[in-house]
Amino acid sequence: MIVRRASVITNIIGHRVNNSCFTTSSSSSSISSGPILKFPSSLLSLDLPDIWPPSSQAIKNCCTANDQPSSALVIDGKLIADEIRFRIAEQVRRMKDSVGKVPGLAVILVGDRRDSLTYVRNKVKACEDAGINSLVTQFPQDCKQDDVIHALSTFNEDPSIHGILVQLPLPQHLDEGKILNVLKLEKDVDGFHPLNMGNLAMRGREPLFIPCTPKGCIELLIRSSVEIMGKNAVVIGRSNIVGLPISLLLQRHHATVTIVHAFTKNPEQIAREADIVVTATGVPNLVRGNWLKPGAVVIDVGTFPVEDPSCENGYRLIGDVCYEEASKVASAITPVPGGVGPMTIAMLLSNTLDSAKRAYDFT
Amino acid sequence: MIVRRASVITNIIGHRVNNSCFTTSSSSSSISSGPILKFPSSLLSLDLPDIWPPSSQAIKNCCTANDQPSSALVIDGKLIADEIRFRIAEQVRRMKDSVGKVPGLAVILVGDRRDSLTYVRNKVKACEDAGINSLVTQFPQDCKQDDVIHALSTFNEDPSIHGILVQLPLPQHLDEGKILNVLKLEKDVDGFHPLNMGNLAMRGREPLFIPCTPKGCIELLIRSSVEIMGKNAVVIGRSNIVGLPISLLLQRHHATVTIVHAFTKNPEQIAREADIVVTATGVPNLVRGNWLKPGAVVIDVGTFPVEDPSCENGYRLIGDVCYEEASKVASAITPVPGGVGPMTIAMLLSNTLDSAKRAYDFT
Repeated sequence: MIVRRASVITNIIGHRVNNSCFTTSSSSSSISSGPILKFPSSLLSLDLPDIWPPSSQAIKNCCTANDQPSSALVIDGKLIADEIRFRIAEQVRRMKDSVGKVPGLAVILVGDRRDSLTYVRNKVKACEDAGINSLVTQFPQDCKQDDVIHALSTFNEDPSIHGILVQLPLPQHLDEGKILNVLKLEKDVDGFHPLNMGNLAMRGREPLFIPCTPKGCIELLIRSSVEIMGKNAVVIGRSNIVGLPISLLLQRHHATVTIVHAFTKNPEQIAREADIVVTATGVPNLVRGNWLKPGAVVIDVGTFPVEDPSCENGYRLIGDVCYEEASKVASAITPVPGGVGPMTIAMLLSNTLDSAKRAYDFT
Repeated sequence: MIVRRASVITNIIGHRVNNSCFTTSSSSSSISSGPILKFPSSLLSLDLPDIWPPSSQAIKNCCTANDQPSSALVIDGKLIADEIRFRIAEQVRRMKDSVGKVPGLAVILVGDRRDSLTYVRNKVKACEDAGINSLVTQFPQDCKQDDVIHALSTFNEDPSIHGILVQLPLPQHLDEGKILNVLKLEKDVDGFHPLNMGNLAMRGREPLFIPCTPKGCIELLIRSSVEIMGKNAVVIGRSNIVGLPISLLLQRHHATVTIVHAFTKNPEQIAREADIVVTATGVPNLVRGNWLKPGAVVIDVGTFPVEDPSCENGYRLIGDVCYEEASKVASAITPVPGGVGPMTIAMLLSNTLDSAKRAYDFT
């Protein structure tokens, strides 16, 4: 038996042990001063922003020419999403024929961010194509929080609306958490409500909706016959919208998941151990070819607009992954654009349809 | 630019790529048959039990004699918990003097499992010591769910009760999820409500309560001056009660977290990369000395009773970690018993005190 050392660890102020990760920064042995717990009572203080290394450097350094041929199969998100949308439209028609109703989606848009306007326009168009009703309520950038909440409440009570989404990000003066809390759980087709997230995280429970982008990522993996169970998966980025729920979903599928973020000291090394890499940082070209194990499957959720006069809109989108390099190492990869992006909208339609099915008890 | 292959991945039924993790088990390219999504609509089906290798073998094989001295510092959870309980008692007295009230904890106990009885007895005793009122309602093993729910509802409405806990596990005929859903969020001192868990998981949000055992683990690390930020942490086991919330908490503290479970193919190898290992599987001696990087910090949440006639109760507790081996490799380690166990009760008292403080607006 080991003999307990006389100087127990509560008293080793600043003690440093070989190879260990002790620090001198936070210890005290006094029994009657300071707070009861050293554990911060407010966890919010720990919500430091994830600041990745400057992106410009990465853009410049990436895509070095190399004669090696690309070996990865391209996971065609556009094609898969089109198939799913076709099937959703079919079911919407069947619902209309059978119960005389169609699903309805309400979108709340605040301000006139160019990217948000594009996203909302694409969602509305997708709804139209699938036969789903859509309603957009747009507020000016400087609107009052109460007005947004009032609109939300109205949609909450409207029986013809089965899904409500608040296009994020909201202007800084609005309290995103408070606004999203108002949203009726049964209509939270984005799946961002903390109760939905808790139910996604916990074994034996099931959320009403799974966030669209992560759901789309898993659908891409499954449709591409990628085995998830027992595989090592690395998720790069830990946003509420993508990183967190995709890590929870991959775990549900019995992958061994590591979550890498801006405070990770050796992200390349960790990524190189992964069979599946899902990256969602918004840092262009962060993931280089040498971050990947040969044969890894790469799902790139990042989208970053870079100026390109040769493109129709004057810009093109690039992902988190240096595609030129990665496609020579990976066994399968999603392109940007045309990979995860189209799946997000397809999953939004799928969630809205599911919600309407529940409302009308239609199977 | 990579040229998209003609055979996009939607159509590669059972295609196998070198070093990749493609499988032949789940693919289809037909556009009009089967469900819309391949992604399982019911996630519950994925809730396979985590079955670890038989434990008896591990017990037998562990603790091989070796002359090497133990080098790890022993993290004395008993001593740290005693200090915290002393401070809690102090604050309870101050609350009584100031507002004439003390915190109240209600415990619901179903059946007569020996371990549950012991845990509840210890909790009640700890409440007494701290000056916290406690109430235990015990139901027979074959009680009706409605009776348990009725008792819970009564405690929900009782203003002298600030914390309610349902001693788990419940008998199989009771629906744990349904029962816990009844519990008022403001009194969920165990922190097991999915809304609490969602708020723990999401950036920018904060749960009302943090589950006691994980909170105790982090408190042990902080009090032992173990740096968490930027360190690689491996959590072994993914229960709702320990594995899940400790992984979320370690992430909040900016560790890079990997969650290892029974489907992980190379747990030793993954654990060997970790600066901090937290294990909560209930599999005795699962974690051997060679699972650890020299200098790692080890938090052992496991408790498993093994018969031992030389002990007062006829049994002794052993943890997930082969202590004899691990204490020669780690830089710090919690013993079993006397490590995490006492902290769980201290954190329950802390959560109950916090709840009463909120109720009485007492700081």
